[in-house]
Amino acid sequence: MKRRSLLKAAVLGSGAAFAAPAISKGLLEWRMVTSWPRGLPGLGTGAERLAANITAMSGGRLTIKVYSAGELVPALECLGAVANGTAQMGHDAAYYHAGKSEGCAFFTAFPFGFTMGEMAAWIKHGNGQKLWDELYAPFGIRGFQAGSTGTQMFGWFRREIRSLADLDGLKFRTPGNQGRVLQKLGVTPVSLPGGEIFPALQSGAIDGAEWVGPYNDLALGFYQVCRYYYSPGYHEPGPALQLTVNEQAWRSLPADLQAIVRAAADAATTDMYAEYTAQSGPALRTLVQKHGVIVRSLPEDVLIACGEKSNEVLNEIHAGDTSPNRIVRRIIEDFLAFRQDVIPWTRVGEQAFVNARRLPFEFKLN
Amino acid sequence: MKRRSLLKAAVLGSGAAFAAPAISKGLLEWRMVTSWPRGLPGLGTGAERLAANITAMSGGRLTIKVYSAGELVPALECLGAVANGTAQMGHDAAYYHAGKSEGCAFFTAFPFGFTMGEMAAWIKHGNGQKLWDELYAPFGIRGFQAGSTGTQMFGWFRREIRSLADLDGLKFRTPGNQGRVLQKLGVTPVSLPGGEIFPALQSGAIDGAEWVGPYNDLALGFYQVCRYYYSPGYHEPGPALQLTVNEQAWRSLPADLQAIVRAAADAATTDMYAEYTAQSGPALRTLVQKHGVIVRSLPEDVLIACGEKSNEVLNEIHAGDTSPNRIVRRIIEDFLAFRQDVIPWTRVGEQAFVNARRLPFEFKLN
Repeated sequence: MKRRSLLKAAVLGSGAAFAAPAISKGLLEWRMVTSWPRGLPGLGTGAERLAANITAMSGGRLTIKVYSAGELVPALECLGAVANGTAQMGHDAAYYHAGKSEGCAFFTAFPFGFTMGEMAAWIKHGNGQKLWDELYAPFGIRGFQAGSTGTQMFGWFRREIRSLADLDGLKFRTPGNQGRVLQKLGVTPVSLPGGEIFPALQSGAIDGAEWVGPYNDLALGFYQVCRYYYSPGYHEPGPALQLTVNEQAWRSLPADLQAIVRAAADAATTDMYAEYTAQSGPALRTLVQKHGVIVRSLPEDVLIACGEKSNEVLNEIHAGDTSPNRIVRRIIEDFLAFRQDVIPWTRVGEQAFVNARRLPFEFKLN
Repeated sequence: MKRRSLLKAAVLGSGAAFAAPAISKGLLEWRMVTSWPRGLPGLGTGAERLAANITAMSGGRLTIKVYSAGELVPALECLGAVANGTAQMGHDAAYYHAGKSEGCAFFTAFPFGFTMGEMAAWIKHGNGQKLWDELYAPFGIRGFQAGSTGTQMFGWFRREIRSLADLDGLKFRTPGNQGRVLQKLGVTPVSLPGGEIFPALQSGAIDGAEWVGPYNDLALGFYQVCRYYYSPGYHEPGPALQLTVNEQAWRSLPADLQAIVRAAADAATTDMYAEYTAQSGPALRTLVQKHGVIVRSLPEDVLIACGEKSNEVLNEIHAGDTSPNRIVRRIIEDFLAFRQDVIPWTRVGEQAFVNARRLPFEFKLN
């Protein structure tokens, strides 16, 4: 029996048995389950580069084999698979697991929450990682930020949204807390995996949809049904992707491999954010110039109403926390405190700069 | 003679002799010269974590010893020290070396150029790294982005800046291309190392100064002399720090250690940006609430004039490129093309979001 087969048998046979034959040779072969179709630009390619990076940095001492959505476990069951040892690692989004704890969402995105930089700041140089570790400890896993899509788009619509009344009664594909926010404004939120959105739009089963942003949305062809593309995606202003690691597997790693995994996750954050930032501009241009998409900003009254309803949802989650250690409440309180500290800096820093770049002068070679 | 002493002798004695005794044991001990005082928050601590990270990930096979500014070479001579082999690595800012090539500045920051995310996008998922490699090849070094301060501040002034006339005649500490921009508006730019700024302000030798942003500026005490703190730092909207590596030393590394160095640099970008983002808000609050600093935006006419003069400087650098392969021209042309692609995305993406967060609604627990 080859090492590879032994390893598979070991992992499939028991969640607790990690690759003992490989360890004896000083080599580990780990599985990384992901929520992404193979090769999905950004999310999928980012996870694949993260895995390749760990393999390369360890000189093959820790080889990561990536499983795309459904190959080993269904797309939305990565966290459970890492918890029970089916895989040692996972790459997905924490908010897919809000059913396990409402606290999970805050480690991906909350409406009107954090940009990419603010999220990384909260996790790495605020209390975010500490709270995240506490949240995940009962599941027997660890979470690390490993990627960001940057700010997403609000979504695609057949008709213009000129006021709150135009949202009322729409069937709109959007998951999680944003679904709860929009429901308060008369929208019927629909949850659908990425691959099922386009047919549902085509058949008229839904009136509109949000997915990610230009880079991913162009590929899925939503522009063929919906002409209006709305900004901003306030509900996912800087979503973090997560690398999860089974706690027992993590502890089995020597210090150098732990350092490699941590750094690979941080590197993936820069790398994926850079990829989305680089690719979204050209994709947006293609949507507008080639496919006639009309890009619009949500009217202010809609944005204000969405902000107010987001605050209601935040309060409902806070009030509904029945966990023994009140971890969800403490996450929300820290999220709010950090938000209050960071927003004034973003305003005089990056926000003031990008707004100044709109002033009437041009960069042009003579 | 101990290995450490041998190594020192080898490195000091000859730029070409890299740690041969250490290599024979499969262990490398490298020097990283930096432009930063030891422990300088953000820049210094970031470089120190980067070095510690490479050491940890390699399990000590590649140990990096950090030298602060002046310890081995003067603060602004890191690039030359890495090129001639005095050190194998350096951490500083590319634009300190504009005297070697005007192309260097574009790998730190150019006025009205890139935010942190746009810069990482250009370098990692645009043509940035390729152009950078070409620019640095004649020096016998490689450059990697390894950090970002995020958007900086325009600077500190004794008196309010209400119009262009208020800038005219001021002696203002600011280096490089921003000095050229402001000179066109009647300012006398003064170059001073960080540590000499405060005494020059106190003595009245200069009227104002820019350094970094709240996190670093609070520590240097500029608020004791200047009451007005202006935003935005359009001249350094998302400055990249660089890790430089001697080309011969780089090639001597096995593939796993090269992968470790690359990932450590990317991880440092996330980590340093996160540190600045987390620390700048509280520092700004302290400046305003404790020290009575008045934070202001530059008036629009000043910003527009700065934009126009920045374009003039850009054209001067482009026209003045006498390099045989026209590398500076090609860097500028690619910088402009990427800028034209990315700005429309930033506008409907992150910029639209942060502006929406200013609308009148509040996040508050009941």
